[in-house]
Amino acid sequence: MEPRPAASGPCPGDSRAAEAAAAASLLNPGRAPSVAAVLPAGGSGERMGVPTPKQFCPVLERPLISYTLQALERVFWIEDIVVAVTGENMEAMKGIIQKYKHQRISLVEAGVTRHRSIFNGLRALAEDQPNSKLSKPEVVIIHDAVRPFVEEDVLLKVVTAAKEHGAAGAVRPLVSTVISPSADGRLDHSLERARHRASEMPQAFLFDVIYEAYQQCSDYDLEFGTECLQLALKYGHVNARLVEGSPDLWKVTYKRDLYAAESIIKGEYAQKNVSTANVRERISQHICIIMDTKEDETHVGHHLEEILKNELNHVEVTSGALCPAGRDLKQIILEQCYNYVCVNVMSSDFEETQRLLNMLEESDLSILYPVVVISVYFLDYKSVPFDQKVENLMQIREYAKEVRKRNILLCGLLIYYPQDEQKLQASLREGATIITTLIKERNSGLVGQLLIA
Amino acid sequence: MEPRPAASGPCPGDSRAAEAAAAASLLNPGRAPSVAAVLPAGGSGERMGVPTPKQFCPVLERPLISYTLQALERVFWIEDIVVAVTGENMEAMKGIIQKYKHQRISLVEAGVTRHRSIFNGLRALAEDQPNSKLSKPEVVIIHDAVRPFVEEDVLLKVVTAAKEHGAAGAVRPLVSTVISPSADGRLDHSLERARHRASEMPQAFLFDVIYEAYQQCSDYDLEFGTECLQLALKYGHVNARLVEGSPDLWKVTYKRDLYAAESIIKGEYAQKNVSTANVRERISQHICIIMDTKEDETHVGHHLEEILKNELNHVEVTSGALCPAGRDLKQIILEQCYNYVCVNVMSSDFEETQRLLNMLEESDLSILYPVVVISVYFLDYKSVPFDQKVENLMQIREYAKEVRKRNILLCGLLIYYPQDEQKLQASLREGATIITTLIKERNSGLVGQLLIA
Repeated sequence: MEPRPAASGPCPGDSRAAEAAAAASLLNPGRAPSVAAVLPAGGSGERMGVPTPKQFCPVLERPLISYTLQALERVFWIEDIVVAVTGENMEAMKGIIQKYKHQRISLVEAGVTRHRSIFNGLRALAEDQPNSKLSKPEVVIIHDAVRPFVEEDVLLKVVTAAKEHGAAGAVRPLVSTVISPSADGRLDHSLERARHRASEMPQAFLFDVIYEAYQQCSDYDLEFGTECLQLALKYGHVNARLVEGSPDLWKVTYKRDLYAAESIIKGEYAQKNVSTANVRERISQHICIIMDTKEDETHVGHHLEEILKNELNHVEVTSGALCPAGRDLKQIILEQCYNYVCVNVMSSDFEETQRLLNMLEESDLSILYPVVVISVYFLDYKSVPFDQKVENLMQIREYAKEVRKRNILLCGLLIYYPQDEQKLQASLREGATIITTLIKERNSGLVGQLLIA
Repeated sequence: MEPRPAASGPCPGDSRAAEAAAAASLLNPGRAPSVAAVLPAGGSGERMGVPTPKQFCPVLERPLISYTLQALERVFWIEDIVVAVTGENMEAMKGIIQKYKHQRISLVEAGVTRHRSIFNGLRALAEDQPNSKLSKPEVVIIHDAVRPFVEEDVLLKVVTAAKEHGAAGAVRPLVSTVISPSADGRLDHSLERARHRASEMPQAFLFDVIYEAYQQCSDYDLEFGTECLQLALKYGHVNARLVEGSPDLWKVTYKRDLYAAESIIKGEYAQKNVSTANVRERISQHICIIMDTKEDETHVGHHLEEILKNELNHVEVTSGALCPAGRDLKQIILEQCYNYVCVNVMSSDFEETQRLLNMLEESDLSILYPVVVISVYFLDYKSVPFDQKVENLMQIREYAKEVRKRNILLCGLLIYYPQDEQKLQASLREGATIITTLIKERNSGLVGQLLIA
């Protein structure tokens, strides 16, 4: 059985220690090797057809490369991450590291080709560098800045295989048949699809194997080659071990891939066999419902909760009152839930919502992903007239404007509360649809709106 | 210079004749060949990880294959389109053809492999079939049901090349290096990326070349082969001409690709060098603003129009009053504009919106794509109090529910109209952001809402 990827963010020491032990045992026999990663990020993104290199293109307003760094960072046994960026992007990259609080990152200047960038990264790790805080690892991972969904299990597999065989790389089945054209643009022959594989990333190498290969490389290799495994074979005589990777390892190449990446991050579809850590990362898959009352379980808030459970696949609904202590909620925030539905049955004010917003602002939760907060109210015509209720709740616009600066997307939702049980169910269903839509779209354009179900 | 793809939908006879002449001249020397297309659509979509085969998965609520049929259909010189579907999907496919009014489609039963499905399609086109309305074409196009963005220019190129050389196929540069593994899962060798190509679709063949190749095929070919160009080479001794295709030809393979496809259809990003017909198809790129007044150009509706022009790239804004005749609007609907902003400066009623909705319902516009209608009102505190205005406008929910059945997504937007010019600009900008969001998201979950800017 494969170990679970290490959880991102703070988590209890116990489970982390267990994961460390699991990882270490897989990295045996012998002691666990020291591991570093090199990330060439000097590409110009010409295939994207946009001026911004693809690794810096935003996904949910955060640059793609930050997702990749996050994926590597949460693997605690990767000690150093060396990123090669061009001089002109150096300051931008420093800004990204600071803004998203990335750690264990060292920057080196990219070369004019991918191979030269990797070589620069390896040089920085080699021990003979003066003034370097980095130390030479036993195994080095090479990954792409534009493959943000790399998981710990495949990293562990390539590292383990590299330690044993000298080199290893992730592969995938070919999607299209590969053909060889003749000089005049005609089909010469086609390759048998089943006998070939697409070489993807990550790859891992015994540091000495790949560093020596790069040192022996010809200029032609450095200019026109792309495949590190081939260098290890040519100069190190190492036949790399090939490891089957998941479809999510694909390289973000075209602009459309940014939308595909966004759909994966949002969790727009439920994936089978996905590990717990990843469910947590699919940010629309986990919502927390906060009630302002501890009434019995038949009340309207619980009805809404039940409907949401049915509406959304793979949703974990966590109910809990904010008052008196709010300790439970703190734990939920620590566990990185990015969606909050604040159900106000008893009141029409913003006290509960304000308390929630304060706790979110105190945490660093919204640094990496936008957090959606929906403040729900009910409209009982008998007690308060519609127009008065709406006028009160319009204040939400001001709150929303304020927290938007902190990457928190706040909306209001007013649900009709008719006496008729069937009508009530209908408006609760409508409310649940709106909640689902807001969580899935996660669009800042509708911030501060009061929606009506 | 390449001819423009033929426009979809009705268009004046003159331009169509010109396009026909252009296409015919490219298909010369000699007379233009008769052309049919075969679309194997029997796949099970196992890579998608969902029970629905990928060609039937919905994109904006319409099955993917319907987009591909639409792309082939609008090429008038393709006389017949033969689709191979499995018995269990036959009724569903008939339903799709009827619902989306597809034409020139014949259905045949799919085989258990892709090659067998294509063979069945070719058999249906061969002249020796009894009771067939189909006739044998000179050239046959083979395409995939899961490549919805095929354009007329690449179809024309492969058909022209097939007429001359016997076979032709679209190719793309490789995204990943291709490697050959040894039996024990190690790297044997890697292929030079620049010397290979990914074989994509569409492909085209002289009918006799490919049909005879299939007739000579071994069972092994039919079971395990995938590449039609290889069959033409092996049995017809034809070295196919390779044609460079666009990135949008990629095959929808994984679930994430459905989101990528949706982003292309919506036109979430502006593409360079895209033809007029395709801009029209990127459905969020063209909006029509309808004013209820013919006041001078400084009024608030025109301000909004100006801001929208700045907010959205590549947006064509068409203003025009619905009254008295509404003839202009009819033309805009015919030209397949999928976004309408109905600006009500003079009134707080739904007369103009209702008139627009009627015209949209009379047209068949919303059959293929959801149409977004946003009814905009202004709030001048001096004349009408907020709560009264809101209560009036809440009626929009009922209208929205009604037209939702016809694939029209209606929302209301109330924009504050303060005296202060700067504040007015701010609320117009906010309004424009909301309009942009609604058009881009095109999400039915927010239908009937009254949004406030």
